[in-house]
Amino acid sequence: MNYDQICYEIKNKGSYLCVGLDSDLNKIPKYLLKYDDPIFEFNKIIIDNTKDLVVAYKPNLAFYEVNGSQGMRTLKKTLDYIPKNIFKIADAKRGDIGNTSLMYARTFFETFNFDAITLSPYMGRDSIDPFLEFKDKWAIILALTSNKSAKDIQSIKNLNGEQLYESIIKNSTEWSSKKNMMYVVGANREDDLLNIRKIIPDNFLLIPGVGAQGGDLKKISNLGMNENCGIIVNVSRSIIYCDDSINFGQEVRLSAMKVKNQMQEILFSSRII
Amino acid sequence: MNYDQICYEIKNKGSYLCVGLDSDLNKIPKYLLKYDDPIFEFNKIIIDNTKDLVVAYKPNLAFYEVNGSQGMRTLKKTLDYIPKNIFKIADAKRGDIGNTSLMYARTFFETFNFDAITLSPYMGRDSIDPFLEFKDKWAIILALTSNKSAKDIQSIKNLNGEQLYESIIKNSTEWSSKKNMMYVVGANREDDLLNIRKIIPDNFLLIPGVGAQGGDLKKISNLGMNENCGIIVNVSRSIIYCDDSINFGQEVRLSAMKVKNQMQEILFSSRII
Repeated sequence: MNYDQICYEIKNKGSYLCVGLDSDLNKIPKYLLKYDDPIFEFNKIIIDNTKDLVVAYKPNLAFYEVNGSQGMRTLKKTLDYIPKNIFKIADAKRGDIGNTSLMYARTFFETFNFDAITLSPYMGRDSIDPFLEFKDKWAIILALTSNKSAKDIQSIKNLNGEQLYESIIKNSTEWSSKKNMMYVVGANREDDLLNIRKIIPDNFLLIPGVGAQGGDLKKISNLGMNENCGIIVNVSRSIIYCDDSINFGQEVRLSAMKVKNQMQEILFSSRII
Repeated sequence: MNYDQICYEIKNKGSYLCVGLDSDLNKIPKYLLKYDDPIFEFNKIIIDNTKDLVVAYKPNLAFYEVNGSQGMRTLKKTLDYIPKNIFKIADAKRGDIGNTSLMYARTFFETFNFDAITLSPYMGRDSIDPFLEFKDKWAIILALTSNKSAKDIQSIKNLNGEQLYESIIKNSTEWSSKKNMMYVVGANREDDLLNIRKIIPDNFLLIPGVGAQGGDLKKISNLGMNENCGIIVNVSRSIIYCDDSINFGQEVRLSAMKVKNQMQEILFSSRII
């Protein structure tokens, strides 16, 4: 999926919502446990009830790997079930030496047919490069994450007073362009969003942390958006676990719809649609 | 496996060799392709021929994930096949927000029964903490890696002139102790090894990059060792792919033996054994 297609989907749907598929056997509605593959049944119902409301799904790899080979089968079936016009993000936070990164790129872009993968920048450019060589596939680099300890490392200042995450974003702009690089910025990093937009006005930002993690959608949208929207906001737990009855699909739809409607209003008032 | 057990195995075997199981369908001897699970057959022969020479095996997750659910089955079978007294390292370079890191910890320590996992420190302490809560399991934190671009990020200096990798090592000493934390330091980072030993004299270092990546065993051993050895040196490609005939097991054994004998000599001359 390329840059223009993502922009088209956002405008067409009036949504920049990504739903995180952090699907956990211990948290899904109990009635699903009678199925052969309960996690897939859960994901299927989530997808059926939200596919017209979202522009992206983001399976979190940890929740599939924990189930070993069965988890990988569930992941593959889930990816195959997601409609083609929806952006598929592997939340995997990989990053390794070149030949290993190439293997990860093949894993996520070919074996599983994801459009994008989240990556840790700690090993530098040559750990990211292999992901940038696949046509219409994306590297999403961790910049400033939403967890409490992130600042201990990501905000370390260099000799010029520049924070580590700023140095990383600046360095990375030489690796490729807005056409295949996005950045993860936590929804609770409001104070830094304007600063980030100064360095990379055009790249998409993937913003997790709205919902269970407490970020404010309107605020971060106003700070992070550009003229093409330029943000994809992820919500996981507060949508997928909003209900545990046999009718959870409808409740999930209502929860997603609420966020989507708010997004549509923001897109409208920002004159993007 | 705890700290004392690792020290015992090193002294008992006269070896601090870790063999990296970066097992790739395109690189293993062709005759293995007739088996149902060629990668497992390959790993089995490597293990049969080296288990008395090594103290650790390090499967590289990318090489298993690329084969989807079959890859996870291969990985599980491989882990089950490794003798109990050998340290099992998941080279996975994970690191995520707390609830996701906990899932990864369960994946590697419980589902697959690894003893240790490599972790990226970019997200800070709370992304590492969940791994430190499992008894006799280890977090191995990336400090200074062997790839060319690593220095772009890892050597960024802070306001006190301290490099990023030093700040991370210093910070992390507050997270736990030598009892369950090791650090990855590339074999080509000789100039920094003495410096690292000043900050963490007691922790084990996992040193990849000897062999195909060009590090010098004797030099890095002299710089990195402490009175309990304190280093585990990984060799992957130059051992596992040293031959592609039907007799590759014997050649692998000879290659591993060469490294092991050199290690034994170094342990002896350093009066560790």
